[in-house]
Amino acid sequence: MERIAYGMVGGGKGAFIGDVHRKAIRIDDLAVLKAGCFSRDAAKSNAFGAELGVEPDRLYTDYQQMAKAEAKRTDGIKFVVCVTPNVSHYEVCKAFLSEGIHVVCDKPLTWTVAQSEELERLSKEKNLLFCVTYAYTGYPAVKQMRKMVQDGKLGAIRFVNAEYPQDWLANSVDENSPIAPWRMDPKVAGISNCLGDIGSHIENLVATITGLKIKRVCARLDSMVEGRTLDDNASVLVEYDGGAKGVYWSSQIAFGYDNALRIRIFGEKGGLEWLQEDPDHFTFTPCDGPKQRFSRGRDQFEACAQQYSRIPAGHPEGLFEAFANVYKPFILALGKHLANQKLEASDLDFPGVAMGLEGVRFINRCVQSSKQGAVWVTL
Amino acid sequence: MERIAYGMVGGGKGAFIGDVHRKAIRIDDLAVLKAGCFSRDAAKSNAFGAELGVEPDRLYTDYQQMAKAEAKRTDGIKFVVCVTPNVSHYEVCKAFLSEGIHVVCDKPLTWTVAQSEELERLSKEKNLLFCVTYAYTGYPAVKQMRKMVQDGKLGAIRFVNAEYPQDWLANSVDENSPIAPWRMDPKVAGISNCLGDIGSHIENLVATITGLKIKRVCARLDSMVEGRTLDDNASVLVEYDGGAKGVYWSSQIAFGYDNALRIRIFGEKGGLEWLQEDPDHFTFTPCDGPKQRFSRGRDQFEACAQQYSRIPAGHPEGLFEAFANVYKPFILALGKHLANQKLEASDLDFPGVAMGLEGVRFINRCVQSSKQGAVWVTL
Amino acid sequence: MERIAYGMVGGGKGAFIGDVHRKAIRIDDLAVLKAGCFSRDAAKSNAFGAELGVEPDRLYTDYQQMAKAEAKRTDGIKFVVCVTPNVSHYEVCKAFLSEGIHVVCDKPLTWTVAQSEELERLSKEKNLLFCVTYAYTGYPAVKQMRKMVQDGKLGAIRFVNAEYPQDWLANSVDENSPIAPWRMDPKVAGISNCLGDIGSHIENLVATITGLKIKRVCARLDSMVEGRTLDDNASVLVEYDGGAKGVYWSSQIAFGYDNALRIRIFGEKGGLEWLQEDPDHFTFTPCDGPKQRFSRGRDQFEACAQQYSRIPAGHPEGLFEAFANVYKPFILALGKHLANQKLEASDLDFPGVAMGLEGVRFINRCVQSSKQGAVWVTL
Amino acid sequence: MERIAYGMVGGGKGAFIGDVHRKAIRIDDLAVLKAGCFSRDAAKSNAFGAELGVEPDRLYTDYQQMAKAEAKRTDGIKFVVCVTPNVSHYEVCKAFLSEGIHVVCDKPLTWTVAQSEELERLSKEKNLLFCVTYAYTGYPAVKQMRKMVQDGKLGAIRFVNAEYPQDWLANSVDENSPIAPWRMDPKVAGISNCLGDIGSHIENLVATITGLKIKRVCARLDSMVEGRTLDDNASVLVEYDGGAKGVYWSSQIAFGYDNALRIRIFGEKGGLEWLQEDPDHFTFTPCDGPKQRFSRGRDQFEACAQQYSRIPAGHPEGLFEAFANVYKPFILALGKHLANQKLEASDLDFPGVAMGLEGVRFINRCVQSSKQGAVWVTL
Repeated sequence: MERIAYGMVGGGKGAFIGDVHRKAIRIDDLAVLKAGCFSRDAAKSNAFGAELGVEPDRLYTDYQQMAKAEAKRTDGIKFVVCVTPNVSHYEVCKAFLSEGIHVVCDKPLTWTVAQSEELERLSKEKNLLFCVTYAYTGYPAVKQMRKMVQDGKLGAIRFVNAEYPQDWLANSVDENSPIAPWRMDPKVAGISNCLGDIGSHIENLVATITGLKIKRVCARLDSMVEGRTLDDNASVLVEYDGGAKGVYWSSQIAFGYDNALRIRIFGEKGGLEWLQEDPDHFTFTPCDGPKQRFSRGRDQFEACAQQYSRIPAGHPEGLFEAFANVYKPFILALGKHLANQKLEASDLDFPGVAMGLEGVRFINRCVQSSKQGAVWVTL
Repeated sequence: MERIAYGMVGGGKGAFIGDVHRKAIRIDDLAVLKAGCFSRDAAKSNAFGAELGVEPDRLYTDYQQMAKAEAKRTDGIKFVVCVTPNVSHYEVCKAFLSEGIHVVCDKPLTWTVAQSEELERLSKEKNLLFCVTYAYTGYPAVKQMRKMVQDGKLGAIRFVNAEYPQDWLANSVDENSPIAPWRMDPKVAGISNCLGDIGSHIENLVATITGLKIKRVCARLDSMVEGRTLDDNASVLVEYDGGAKGVYWSSQIAFGYDNALRIRIFGEKGGLEWLQEDPDHFTFTPCDGPKQRFSRGRDQFEACAQQYSRIPAGHPEGLFEAFANVYKPFILALGKHLANQKLEASDLDFPGVAMGLEGVRFINRCVQSSKQGAVWVTL
Repeated sequence: MERIAYGMVGGGKGAFIGDVHRKAIRIDDLAVLKAGCFSRDAAKSNAFGAELGVEPDRLYTDYQQMAKAEAKRTDGIKFVVCVTPNVSHYEVCKAFLSEGIHVVCDKPLTWTVAQSEELERLSKEKNLLFCVTYAYTGYPAVKQMRKMVQDGKLGAIRFVNAEYPQDWLANSVDENSPIAPWRMDPKVAGISNCLGDIGSHIENLVATITGLKIKRVCARLDSMVEGRTLDDNASVLVEYDGGAKGVYWSSQIAFGYDNALRIRIFGEKGGLEWLQEDPDHFTFTPCDGPKQRFSRGRDQFEACAQQYSRIPAGHPEGLFEAFANVYKPFILALGKHLANQKLEASDLDFPGVAMGLEGVRFINRCVQSSKQGAVWVTL
Repeated sequence: MERIAYGMVGGGKGAFIGDVHRKAIRIDDLAVLKAGCFSRDAAKSNAFGAELGVEPDRLYTDYQQMAKAEAKRTDGIKFVVCVTPNVSHYEVCKAFLSEGIHVVCDKPLTWTVAQSEELERLSKEKNLLFCVTYAYTGYPAVKQMRKMVQDGKLGAIRFVNAEYPQDWLANSVDENSPIAPWRMDPKVAGISNCLGDIGSHIENLVATITGLKIKRVCARLDSMVEGRTLDDNASVLVEYDGGAKGVYWSSQIAFGYDNALRIRIFGEKGGLEWLQEDPDHFTFTPCDGPKQRFSRGRDQFEACAQQYSRIPAGHPEGLFEAFANVYKPFILALGKHLANQKLEASDLDFPGVAMGLEGVRFINRCVQSSKQGAVWVTL
């Protein structure tokens, strides 16, 4: 397969997440960056585009213009990567979908449920692929756990305990720091800080592994550090369709934790546990035997998971590789799509727009629950 | 100090917890078993009493009679240990208090709040010591963490995440097993199984370490295994006086967990984490430095905690020693009391009747919350 | 069974290990302290004996006299516990064996191989039980691993990596501290400090679990802290009969380690790993499956190991309980012996004099190897 | 800086390690693959070169010819990456050095000490940069530990315990498997299998972090699985210049271990411990405080280490990123060199040819020691 041309909106010089996306794509080298809108400032955009090896005539300062121009070129980009602040995801994605360009967008997908619903509708109408980069879904261990749940190794799921503690906002943030408005000003940050940023990863990862659908939530969003209007800690009681229950906890004030997303799933026949900070391993305890430690790269990982492993067991793979594992199936599927081949369900092994929509719905309902005093709200 | 004579009600042959109490008391050898009511069957009580070296004339089949008879003897027992099923704690404790005999009782103290209130009132009126054996409070690491919170090492506490997962009831229990009614019949087990048995340890341990008082709860008690009327899994959102928040999770269906009581406390200045299955260690993360691992027996443990350590660091102490650490200060305080010495606050370094009452209140309010649909209930 | 009378030599007020022995014996309450030689100073011995509840006429200042006097009494002690400094083990044990009294002695058994050989000979001649308190052998996990090796779960053993790092002597010890001569003066400490004290536990535990016999050693004993003449760190290459190999490392200068005895055994069919600081668990990795975590108290522990467990899984048992597990089978075996019942091999489930002798041989050969420049020496 | 052109010898289709090198280089995108000798079969080399986007006229079937042709081009490669089997490292490196082309070569560098010495001499004579890809040196945690040792945080080093257990050769390997000759035939594998492959990583990593030079070794190489002539397990006693000591253990038969390179370093003032399977963290225990856990991305990592971190704490980085961290300073240094800028010592932050030579010397001396019966051999 020829490498596919892609463009990027956002991710300018010094922007953290755009760089991660580009590095992740380069690992497998299935797509190549050919256009970009890295800044509204032409000089900056051009300078940075040159660094990245993008031709000058494909550097833009306006994403609308970029969408139109690229759509017209015979060698135009086939997909765009949207890594702007959350507030503009909706408009950017819509612009490219409207021009028939496939989309990869950061999470959370949009601010409102209606916006996400419209993006879902548009992508279906236009028959365009749409990927939301929930990067943790790319870990081979996550794929393997999903497979084990699908194969009934846990039986019916009873309870989920999932958490995502961090401590990087446990101390006060200087009001003059660049991050201050980002986190403290709802006009920039949206309706939620902690729950929206990391709580949504819990929601998505549990859905990915278990397939459970949330029926209702009872959420309490806390602002623990003085002077904050948005949440930095959130506790959510969850009920799923079919009777399973759960508790989700996300926090940015949990001293001692870097980025400790942990998922524990308990079913009739066994239990699973996985920690993002040790992503190559998980444990499985069957109902009738001792706890087992699974390791990426060993026989216990099945082909559907192991295909995403690049090095033998014990040679750590990290978040860049997980990101690459979101892009790899997306780009391969796009390659088939562009070659007019039929896509199987197994080709679509990446988080799509429907998952993005579920995430936005979850965030909105939790915020609503919390505002009403931590009462139960149906999704 | 002469060894103090004690008696036991319950804890007959084969009963698990009574044996633990006796072994724990023997470790420090500060008290000696001199009377017992091990069974309502005289032959059984006598046979088992003989094994334990109790004189025949001090073996009873009726605890009321025992309380009266021992109270009359000049060499009568000075305290009683009540290790009967929860349903009879109230009556047994009352009988001995009424006769002026000091009491040690298993947790949860009683079924109803009113019963515990009465026991508290009685023990105060009669100036009797009353210990409730929340054994986990005896670990030196728990004493050390309490000291650190008291000394302000964490600053004001913001959030507590505490859990107690087990898996011993994750599989169905045979209806004919002796444990079946115990767990499935509310007439025997009371208003709660999981929350009452282990959730109450969470409540107590958090209160012990932090001193926080619970203001209100939102609790969901689940019966995950078919055929159970009582809970085997419980999730509780907690609010404390002063604004701190918490989440408590207890479970008996969590495959992969033996008895994994874990406490995490996050304050303005740092975080603490402790796991009961590794009781000699805990971690402390200050707001301005790396995570530190504390180890019983090393310099970092202060005298008030280290006095309960019996062997050097790295030589594990377990639950028997923790139990002994509940009994040791109780018996030493009783010794002073019997010698008409004044008891200082530091002498009362064991969980008292007030803590027993708080536990019963917590259980009752959680059950009420859950029955009303997991709504907020004030304590 | 009536409780058996025992006596103690050493273990006076403030002596650490004697207290551990007494507490451990009290846990199961199968024997009772009836005589003692706690000090050569009569006043001290009497005062401490009174505290322990020993009758005045059975408190001695001379162990020779104690052995003779107790042997003559009809209610005399049936076994003695020798917890004196190592230098006098040989003489004490010999005195009691000569009078027909069974013996429990601390490790290392004696200084010289010849002394241990004589104790072995004497105990056989007189048909007396002899236990050497290698306490770590008492952990149920150790019993279970031994069973798995015996049952062929590992196949033929290929390699052992065992270590025992501590750090309590990593800093210089004040010359005026009471421990200074103990550790720095060979007249008191014997031919080895670190290897003799803790390296010998490695040797014993590997032998206990695997049954392997050491053929030869190549040992290097280091004195890492200035001013020490004896070793505080030791590395030993080991070869066993039958071709298996091993490496043993013991250290008292390993900053970060309290008492971290760790045993790893690799066979043709699987591997075992156990850490003394987490004694209730071990891992087993079969040649054809994932790593499994075994937990005391769960189904995977077989009866021969589980019989030594006193509380359910996840309720930690520690070193006191391990010590009690050395005493329990010894005292039960002695009870049968005294009742003229035949002892089965399974009754002798404690480390005997032959193991003590092996330990002394190991220490002596390692010291010899090191003195000759870390060359190979045959055992 | 313009991206630097590089070529590759070895690393054909399906070859594992060549792909890792290419991916790692792409992460930072500082160099671009422009020439290759992927196979002696022209069709294969051409097909694979096309996949990789290399122009047809720069695909070679003979590395000698490649060295000469590229040296002549004005746009010729500036450095070559040698990822052939070990047996040909020497000839390949020599060919490119002779033509004035800088070299990156896999480890172990060569079979004989003389070969490595010659490569060192050649690279100095010609003033060419030479990097040996000991990938584990690229982890930020390794850089940080090295800095702490250099800054005296450990004081003088006393003892090193380092190990590298794997289990992928613990079961017999089918004679017909492609890996069989590789591992069993000394003509292909050289003088050592386990020690040469992974034991050499121990030697290098300890030298990197501590700066210690090995004075002599006593090594025992074992072949534990029937039918093997080369070692699959190796134990080495080590002595360093200056009096520090060490033990190294490497194994491929250690059931339960994937790739568990672990380094423990003990000095006068503290201890360090790091495990390759959890590369973002290490622990430091100072002589006067509790054990501390350091985490990449947090304040405790200094600039010289943190500069190699690409994502915040708790977002795992793995072996690909470590590899990239070997290439990054090499390529940046090469850029300066090509621009005729003076290279500072801090620019040469990658393992050079001298480290490659030390590794080869270590392997050869260990093999010699083992063949003579595990005796001491001076380096």
